[in-house]
Amino acid sequence: MNSEVKKASLKEIAEALSKVETDTLLVVVDSRVWQLYGKDLEENINKVLEANKKVLLYKTLEGEATKSMAEFEKGLEFFLEKGIHRKSHLVAIGGGATSDFAGFLAATLLRGLSWSVIPTTLLSMVDAGIGGKTGLNSKNGKNLIGAFHMPDHVWINECFLETLPETELNSGKGEVIKYGFLSQEIAELLKAKSDLSSIIEACAQKKEAIVQADFTERGERISLNLGHTFGHAIEKIYTMPHGEAIFWGMALIFKLYGTEEQLKLLRTFETGVGASFGQSPWFNKTFPVDKIIEYVSKDKKVKSNGIVQTVTIKEVGKFETKERTLDEIRKELEKEKDELRIFDF
Amino acid sequence: MNSEVKKASLKEIAEALSKVETDTLLVVVDSRVWQLYGKDLEENINKVLEANKKVLLYKTLEGEATKSMAEFEKGLEFFLEKGIHRKSHLVAIGGGATSDFAGFLAATLLRGLSWSVIPTTLLSMVDAGIGGKTGLNSKNGKNLIGAFHMPDHVWINECFLETLPETELNSGKGEVIKYGFLSQEIAELLKAKSDLSSIIEACAQKKEAIVQADFTERGERISLNLGHTFGHAIEKIYTMPHGEAIFWGMALIFKLYGTEEQLKLLRTFETGVGASFGQSPWFNKTFPVDKIIEYVSKDKKVKSNGIVQTVTIKEVGKFETKERTLDEIRKELEKEKDELRIFDF
Repeated sequence: MNSEVKKASLKEIAEALSKVETDTLLVVVDSRVWQLYGKDLEENINKVLEANKKVLLYKTLEGEATKSMAEFEKGLEFFLEKGIHRKSHLVAIGGGATSDFAGFLAATLLRGLSWSVIPTTLLSMVDAGIGGKTGLNSKNGKNLIGAFHMPDHVWINECFLETLPETELNSGKGEVIKYGFLSQEIAELLKAKSDLSSIIEACAQKKEAIVQADFTERGERISLNLGHTFGHAIEKIYTMPHGEAIFWGMALIFKLYGTEEQLKLLRTFETGVGASFGQSPWFNKTFPVDKIIEYVSKDKKVKSNGIVQTVTIKEVGKFETKERTLDEIRKELEKEKDELRIFDF
Repeated sequence: MNSEVKKASLKEIAEALSKVETDTLLVVVDSRVWQLYGKDLEENINKVLEANKKVLLYKTLEGEATKSMAEFEKGLEFFLEKGIHRKSHLVAIGGGATSDFAGFLAATLLRGLSWSVIPTTLLSMVDAGIGGKTGLNSKNGKNLIGAFHMPDHVWINECFLETLPETELNSGKGEVIKYGFLSQEIAELLKAKSDLSSIIEACAQKKEAIVQADFTERGERISLNLGHTFGHAIEKIYTMPHGEAIFWGMALIFKLYGTEEQLKLLRTFETGVGASFGQSPWFNKTFPVDKIIEYVSKDKKVKSNGIVQTVTIKEVGKFETKERTLDEIRKELEKEKDELRIFDF
């Protein structure tokens, strides 16, 4: 159940693809990525692909829009109509939405095909593209439909970041900062303001190591939810990019259940990765306790009625989980409400 | 990845359900079964269920009609709207179509819930309900969308067979006969015309044992496809019940690649289980070589272009697989075409 996660040039990726044991490659690519890199990708792949390998190309809608049941059905029938078989191999090229969607296609076509990922956003290079969580959005919430389906390969190529919009790059940095709290090594890289390339590599390997140790999220994988309990709520309430919301989710969790030092470290890591999240979205406004609780209660990580498993940090590299009731959390937020209004750590 | 497969009364099933570690049971039941047994099921379950267990009931369409993408989405959103969580447990009550559908819901809700099956048809008691193959039908073919997702429990209760239509009972017997070739023990039970109850038990345990040895169908599980290579084609061409088509699929495979003795045994087992399949659907008609080849070529078990893995029997309890090209098979069918017309073993 392991993936091989490594950096690779387009040429190396094409060569690796030509070596996949299959005669049929199903390529699922974000349509925007295809616009920008399609020619390059095609040229490289055509150069090395044997004549007897068939390539079926499916372009997804951009971003989250593709994670719908309608698009899922369209993708399934597109490939089934072409006549695929169990030894077909699927390749996802795009950000987290594309790999979520494409991975769920791979998980469910003919009861499961092998697949690989070429992540094209910072967020997917360090997080979403690694670890085999795949899925769609439901009318009732994000990622509520899906499967755990591990990719064989994750090929990381930073050329794709050159065209990534600034807000998306910044969003990815939010998740990078999270790894600073989960790994001594990454904390050091961030403090030393290392180049983004080394940081990406370290985060990707850290994520893969955590997933290998705990594929179905019963143990260590839960640490990856640091900042996410409140983060998802913040993302919805302020329609904010994911990683940025995770940054504020961490700020909130450290404020409630952490230390001053952790809050300081958060800013240190922020500078270290060259991000700038400024002031909290609720600065000088009413802190939205009710809405936060409402969204948290809908999260799929909420266990039985009203029990939330929060992730906190003991020290860099060591996480803790604790079960808290929604009522407790509400009380704590109410207590901090006024201070959070002007909270500017 | 094992299921506990056992016989149980409705009372015992209800008691087992009350012990499942969850506070939320998602019950997916075939609407016809609910009509016939709903009151009984409800009474038994209500008697033992603790007050703090929530039961969400979803009635599917009857039979294969429920295995569509539209019904899948309906089922997903039904449960997601009610607010389920990862520790919810799903129970499928119905025939193979219901467990295929319900199991795929379980496989994909919140990236996978635990689940159990109460099969209500002979076919599902000995085959479809056991082994964790779940799925939907595509516009391009049956069961082309799905997942391997093992149930925790399979509770077999023969009371459901009392209301099963004769054609469905007969169809199930076709699959029972298959087990006669895969297991010495079942061959003996059939030869001795043992009671159906013992035969069901033995077939269910055999299926579970095969699946445990080979969950994702790389080895022994392939033996379960005995009769299916041609059987699926026959099922389509003559719109015939599944198990009956499998019976004729076995007849065809034994005629082409087996022995006279195997054909005789087929009739012995048929009598042994109290089935009566009469004459072949192509008796005194033109044998449909082209259509057979057309449907076989579309089967998801066809490997790369045109290679079919056929399952034959060396002796009772020992199977063999062989790769044959569609062309070879076509030639052999053409050769036997005239004899098959009056083939009456």
